[in-house]
Amino acid sequence: MVKTLEWTDAGVRFIDQTRLPTEEIYVTCGDYREVAIAIRDMIVRGAPAIGVAAAMGVALGVRDSKATSRSALQVEFNEICNTLAATRPTAVNLFWAIRRMRDRFEQLASSPVESVKRALIEEAQHMYLADIAACEAMGRHGAVLMPSSGGVLTHCNAGALATCGYGTALGVIRAAVEAGKKIHVFADETRPFLQGSRLTAWELNKDGIPTTVIADNMAGAMMKQGKIGAVVVGADRIAANGDVANKIGTYTVAVLAKEHGIPFYVAAPWSTIDLATPDGDRIPIEQRSAREMTHMAGKQITPDGIRVENPAFDVTPHRYVAAIITERGIAKSPYAESLQVLAAAGAIPEQQTAIATP
Amino acid sequence: MVKTLEWTDAGVRFIDQTRLPTEEIYVTCGDYREVAIAIRDMIVRGAPAIGVAAAMGVALGVRDSKATSRSALQVEFNEICNTLAATRPTAVNLFWAIRRMRDRFEQLASSPVESVKRALIEEAQHMYLADIAACEAMGRHGAVLMPSSGGVLTHCNAGALATCGYGTALGVIRAAVEAGKKIHVFADETRPFLQGSRLTAWELNKDGIPTTVIADNMAGAMMKQGKIGAVVVGADRIAANGDVANKIGTYTVAVLAKEHGIPFYVAAPWSTIDLATPDGDRIPIEQRSAREMTHMAGKQITPDGIRVENPAFDVTPHRYVAAIITERGIAKSPYAESLQVLAAAGAIPEQQTAIATP
Repeated sequence: MVKTLEWTDAGVRFIDQTRLPTEEIYVTCGDYREVAIAIRDMIVRGAPAIGVAAAMGVALGVRDSKATSRSALQVEFNEICNTLAATRPTAVNLFWAIRRMRDRFEQLASSPVESVKRALIEEAQHMYLADIAACEAMGRHGAVLMPSSGGVLTHCNAGALATCGYGTALGVIRAAVEAGKKIHVFADETRPFLQGSRLTAWELNKDGIPTTVIADNMAGAMMKQGKIGAVVVGADRIAANGDVANKIGTYTVAVLAKEHGIPFYVAAPWSTIDLATPDGDRIPIEQRSAREMTHMAGKQITPDGIRVENPAFDVTPHRYVAAIITERGIAKSPYAESLQVLAAAGAIPEQQTAIATP
Repeated sequence: MVKTLEWTDAGVRFIDQTRLPTEEIYVTCGDYREVAIAIRDMIVRGAPAIGVAAAMGVALGVRDSKATSRSALQVEFNEICNTLAATRPTAVNLFWAIRRMRDRFEQLASSPVESVKRALIEEAQHMYLADIAACEAMGRHGAVLMPSSGGVLTHCNAGALATCGYGTALGVIRAAVEAGKKIHVFADETRPFLQGSRLTAWELNKDGIPTTVIADNMAGAMMKQGKIGAVVVGADRIAANGDVANKIGTYTVAVLAKEHGIPFYVAAPWSTIDLATPDGDRIPIEQRSAREMTHMAGKQITPDGIRVENPAFDVTPHRYVAAIITERGIAKSPYAESLQVLAAAGAIPEQQTAIATP
């Protein structure tokens, strides 16, 4: 399986997602500032991968610190966390991961600097392994929701490349295929960054899962033609009421799915669920550079001086969502209740499927 | 105003729409085969423009004929018409225009070859002028349907570049702006050929009409944010029951408009209405080259060997359509009746607005 990101002695190593699918190039970020740049410039992207990348960035920054006292280290630690937190505003996993590293740092308030460094590296590596395990658990829980055969539409890339491995939405598809389901994936190309045509198509092609790339605007026609039996997407943040922030265009897909009576599923690790945010209206939506819209492969595709919109995400209200698949189990409407049930369940054993449908 | 296409002594001159918006280059097709290639390769596109281009192609082919007898000319004429008809299957204007040239040719069965040549050139030039007049009439009829201010979404390019001038959907917007309405256009970029970002944005920018380019997948988010008060698009073929074939992605926009209670209007000349085709299921849908999806500006954007879909059009069922704006007036549901009323009205004086709502 592709190594989306990896801790190495030289730093955090990423597959450069801006170069796929034609070039498989790995870059190593030698310090935490380079990790922050890699997140901001989408060399690594996908909410779960961003979270673990940030944790590894924190570990790297602390490891490289020259501080000899706790108080000096604390100053540096805050600077490291702030730099990494300022990269992308929407995916809550980023803040969750930094918070978790901060909690660990605070637990070690009286430990020597060297053991703090070791413990933070271990913590980031534990988060890496836990992310893969969470994806595999989502796959087990979600596979039963997939049709036994036919087309499944996904948007953006919620795959191995968006996580530490296996994927969220694509993990559900992988698990369904492993269980013998005959699924043909329809991958929205996902303008402007083309995560679908570049990344989802690349990783599914590598796995031999039949995949057809469509332009985002073809999803309606494919559904009308009866080619799509289910939709499954990832998420960047899920509010307490079940509203889902995900890649721009997800809401359009959800509306189309509703119109055609097709179930719309969201797969995301528990770290994506933000119970402190009551609904989708409170989720900050990142606006990205106009150049992603005005240029393509270096070529200008809009006239000089034209206005563009480039929100990186949109919010799908919970009423469009048939189920939220997490490693803790599956939540169904009403989400304000079912997500609380999963929250209370805490870290239940991963081999157990909790179906939380109040 | 831009000259989308033009009859010249040297042949049919087109603005090369594959080079816009960064290069304003004109090409002259010196014989009818070059006109056919220009249509097939989308140097000229848009149903009304394709129709007149084909008519000019027929006139050019006949003009250049070395035939001295009617029977020899008839053989060449058939070859010319067949070549032009084989370029693109969906836009009915192509077949309408060739049929009209054929009718004129048959009317002149007993005329000398030289007067047939003159008459066919005149017929094509008359169709050119009539197309501009039809767009202006659509503008007058449709302007009242536009909101007095705010956002209007359009898909693909149904503008001056899709017609002989002024445009169908963009003609309605232009007329509304000329009538003092404060409209801000949202232009779907319209993958894969980018008619929205390249062509609609270019011609509206030239006219000083405020325009924002969005990725196709952003339309839902823009509507949910309340930025869109109406949708107006063109058409490539409208069946007798009001089903509308138009650029791929139009159906997705129509579903989104319905979900948000936003009126979805179609503007098209009468030549786009195909009463011989009972419903949208019978409209042939052109499949274009995979390369339009796999490459962009020469750069490969999908992995080797991936499947793609590339239907050039989709069909929007009539139940999503709030009104069809033609030069003969406005048709509303039930279209099976209202389109017959407009058909019976025939070529009514253009200054008169016929509101056909049985």
